[in-house]
Amino acid sequence: MTISVTVWGENVHENTNAVVREIYPNGMHTCIAEGLALDPEIIPRTATLEQPEHGLSQAVLDQTDVLTWWGHAAHGKVDDAIVTRVQKRVLEGMGLIVLHSGHYSKIFKRLLGTTCSLSWREAGEKERLWVTNPAHRIARGLDGYFELPNEEMYGEPFGVPEPEEQVFISWFEGGEVFRSGCCWRRGAGKIFYFRPGHETYPTYHQPTVQLVLQNAVHWAQPEATRWVDACPNVPIENALEPLVQKGATLHKPGQSGFR
Amino acid sequence: MTISVTVWGENVHENTNAVVREIYPNGMHTCIAEGLALDPEIIPRTATLEQPEHGLSQAVLDQTDVLTWWGHAAHGKVDDAIVTRVQKRVLEGMGLIVLHSGHYSKIFKRLLGTTCSLSWREAGEKERLWVTNPAHRIARGLDGYFELPNEEMYGEPFGVPEPEEQVFISWFEGGEVFRSGCCWRRGAGKIFYFRPGHETYPTYHQPTVQLVLQNAVHWAQPEATRWVDACPNVPIENALEPLVQKGATLHKPGQSGFR
Amino acid sequence: MTISVTVWGENVHENTNAVVREIYPNGMHTCIAEGLALDPEIIPRTATLEQPEHGLSQAVLDQTDVLTWWGHAAHGKVDDAIVTRVQKRVLEGMGLIVLHSGHYSKIFKRLLGTTCSLSWREAGEKERLWVTNPAHRIARGLDGYFELPNEEMYGEPFGVPEPEEQVFISWFEGGEVFRSGCCWRRGAGKIFYFRPGHETYPTYHQPTVQLVLQNAVHWAQPEATRWVDACPNVPIENALEPLVQKGATLHKPGQSGFR
Amino acid sequence: MTISVTVWGENVHENTNAVVREIYPNGMHTCIAEGLALDPEIIPRTATLEQPEHGLSQAVLDQTDVLTWWGHAAHGKVDDAIVTRVQKRVLEGMGLIVLHSGHYSKIFKRLLGTTCSLSWREAGEKERLWVTNPAHRIARGLDGYFELPNEEMYGEPFGVPEPEEQVFISWFEGGEVFRSGCCWRRGAGKIFYFRPGHETYPTYHQPTVQLVLQNAVHWAQPEATRWVDACPNVPIENALEPLVQKGATLHKPGQSGFR
Repeated sequence: MTISVTVWGENVHENTNAVVREIYPNGMHTCIAEGLALDPEIIPRTATLEQPEHGLSQAVLDQTDVLTWWGHAAHGKVDDAIVTRVQKRVLEGMGLIVLHSGHYSKIFKRLLGTTCSLSWREAGEKERLWVTNPAHRIARGLDGYFELPNEEMYGEPFGVPEPEEQVFISWFEGGEVFRSGCCWRRGAGKIFYFRPGHETYPTYHQPTVQLVLQNAVHWAQPEATRWVDACPNVPIENALEPLVQKGATLHKPGQSGFR
Repeated sequence: MTISVTVWGENVHENTNAVVREIYPNGMHTCIAEGLALDPEIIPRTATLEQPEHGLSQAVLDQTDVLTWWGHAAHGKVDDAIVTRVQKRVLEGMGLIVLHSGHYSKIFKRLLGTTCSLSWREAGEKERLWVTNPAHRIARGLDGYFELPNEEMYGEPFGVPEPEEQVFISWFEGGEVFRSGCCWRRGAGKIFYFRPGHETYPTYHQPTVQLVLQNAVHWAQPEATRWVDACPNVPIENALEPLVQKGATLHKPGQSGFR
Repeated sequence: MTISVTVWGENVHENTNAVVREIYPNGMHTCIAEGLALDPEIIPRTATLEQPEHGLSQAVLDQTDVLTWWGHAAHGKVDDAIVTRVQKRVLEGMGLIVLHSGHYSKIFKRLLGTTCSLSWREAGEKERLWVTNPAHRIARGLDGYFELPNEEMYGEPFGVPEPEEQVFISWFEGGEVFRSGCCWRRGAGKIFYFRPGHETYPTYHQPTVQLVLQNAVHWAQPEATRWVDACPNVPIENALEPLVQKGATLHKPGQSGFR
Repeated sequence: MTISVTVWGENVHENTNAVVREIYPNGMHTCIAEGLALDPEIIPRTATLEQPEHGLSQAVLDQTDVLTWWGHAAHGKVDDAIVTRVQKRVLEGMGLIVLHSGHYSKIFKRLLGTTCSLSWREAGEKERLWVTNPAHRIARGLDGYFELPNEEMYGEPFGVPEPEEQVFISWFEGGEVFRSGCCWRRGAGKIFYFRPGHETYPTYHQPTVQLVLQNAVHWAQPEATRWVDACPNVPIENALEPLVQKGATLHKPGQSGFR
């Protein structure tokens, strides 16, 4: 069985910054998608900000099992209606993998409800990611740690709800730590945040990073049926136990609730 | 030490529905506040939808340790800017107690990120709330269970993130169950959802319900200092370990990050 | 890929109680195994208390992906050394599905660390299990709820650590509720507790119950590599960053730690 | 209101190792207790391994709100019956603060159910503890981080259940990270693990460490009534809803369950 992945990229720096363009001549999204395609069970496509509906039409989302999200400079340009559409699809069961500066994306903040803030430094310093849960699907095939020679630093406190599963914690050369691989479930959807991926370094060309993303796709794929949001009224005559109306009511029979 | 509580009420049904007015002649918010005031450590005030800024100015929120929220018919009339202000204050440390139909309030959905949906029936049936965690602050002084003779039914699945602490689960006469007392932490704020409180029944006059709300206020009060949101850049020269710039950078020194 | 399951049964009541023998003439474990075998990806075998090493030799455990556990009258007769062996194997990655009265088994209490107590009544009353998480692997193929016409009642509070994922909550005819499907992770192993299965009722012949157990096996199978317990010393000369000895030491070079 | 704390110390190295004796001439437990006593609401006493019942009689535990535990060389000498007694008292509501090498104590492994393993190095290297949750009671009064100039290194993976609240994560000079402040709840008791405290360094003389331990005592004190373990049978005639016996039974009326 294959997994359909949509790799979303902001695709701004690649067109405006010579350093980024040199590292990712076809865009970061293309590099990420190529890394995923190394796994024969993963069928990636890409979508970018400048496309109609940011490339995230309802039809695309309906056919997407897992969405990956990289953005940085243009979070504010993402249409709120598209964010609402993506949020709904995650709650229905689509997995979401949020990458690096995507911590400040509208969709991540919308789903987590918190500031998602952190501290940061762009010094090209060494990052070492420690596997805190070697048994996790996302850590499959990894050793105890892996290193990135040059990365942006992100430091604690990370303003997110307590992760439900912690997969990685980073050590930074400059003295900070960060919860670099965090899992949450929201509705029927699984969310994974993965810290590395600053645009001025070739992080997504790194084989270990590619393996982590492949693993994350497997972990984040839907487990069961699509969860369709509803707030059904259960009429008294349909109650599972015998029941008679008691007391006053606000709603007339058959009326839907306030929302 | 006292705890400052703002009791927010939509105050719509009390003015439009004779049944509700008879049960809560001074408004549901007033009844809730009076129940809280029975605890000498709690200093409640009230705020309602029709007031300027819905009674939730920045000054009021700054002086509020815990906010309780009851709404039903007019969720859509709550100003998004006020919701953002309340959300920010919760993340800074203000406790939030969401009551009954407040499951569909903007602030609850904003903080949890999910649909917050459920099934429901307005039959005035019996609800029995079982204490699943007798050791929890919110269960202090309670026996194994308590009953409400007439309540609206809410049924599973409840579309919320997995509760971090489960305090109550309800049994309904008509055959359903519901997670009726749920705790989450978001940023520095604690959130408690308490299910009972349909407006056509005298639930908030019930002494056990009043005790639960008093307990919840104690639990939800801030534990430490206010958490001020920031995303500080840490200049290389201020790094805690010796560090030299490596690789290319996107940001100029002193520049703030994208947001 | 197939999943190897060992179905462990105490096999006491089947041999001493006529009612139980009539319902489960070949033992409860055989009925449970037959239900699992309906899933072509599951390869079950059985093991029982009276066998040497209770049928749980190291070789059997090493070849087991998921172990199911039913016991009631003879928890105390399970050898502590076998419990330690099973615990070790769970922490290495073997899934564990604990059934009904197995809440008081040594292995369940050992892994959870709590009393695992509850209240109970043997009245053959109706139990209705509500799906609280329709998106969970264990709920695949289920509707909103399912019923068992006759079951023993288990009531809250259930003395377990907060479940990491709640899949089912039960409504009982006599007025109680119970967290009937609970998930935890311990080490590399996943643990699922499923409440139904009193020996005087034909619960494990029920197709929906069989589906739940099949689903639970899929959920509980190992995700990644086996986690081998160790407490490795990292010699100073092998540190990932340059390091020199400072201060006094307790241990000599190469010495293993206290345990 | 005051909080009664029992500070348990193994008190072995203090009597056998000159370095440890010089740093802690009256024993580590005395130093820890003196640090707690700086908080006027905390009333500490001490107990040590060599005392009758290791100083942990039922009467002592009954009067203890929070127990702190430091052990290293003699975990195996702690009587299993005392461990069982302490475990029972924690589940009833007594807080437990486990220090440093106490990760391998019988009581910690008993309550968590896992290996509690980690990697380690005794190099006197620098440890920097980052506050990951500035709003937590245990972080009250702390800045973003604090440092210990000389400590033993503990590295991930830490073989514990996912912490329910993460308060500190450590950065080590030699390149590792560790979850240094972890919270769990078990039964009615709260458990805090705090990493620092190797016996050859003066860690417990450090004012910030003393503040953390004072905070942890406040956090870990019981919230509500003592939870007494029981497994009560609810006779049919006492059911909250009308109920008649159906089907066969295993137990006779009034009989207690298997255990």
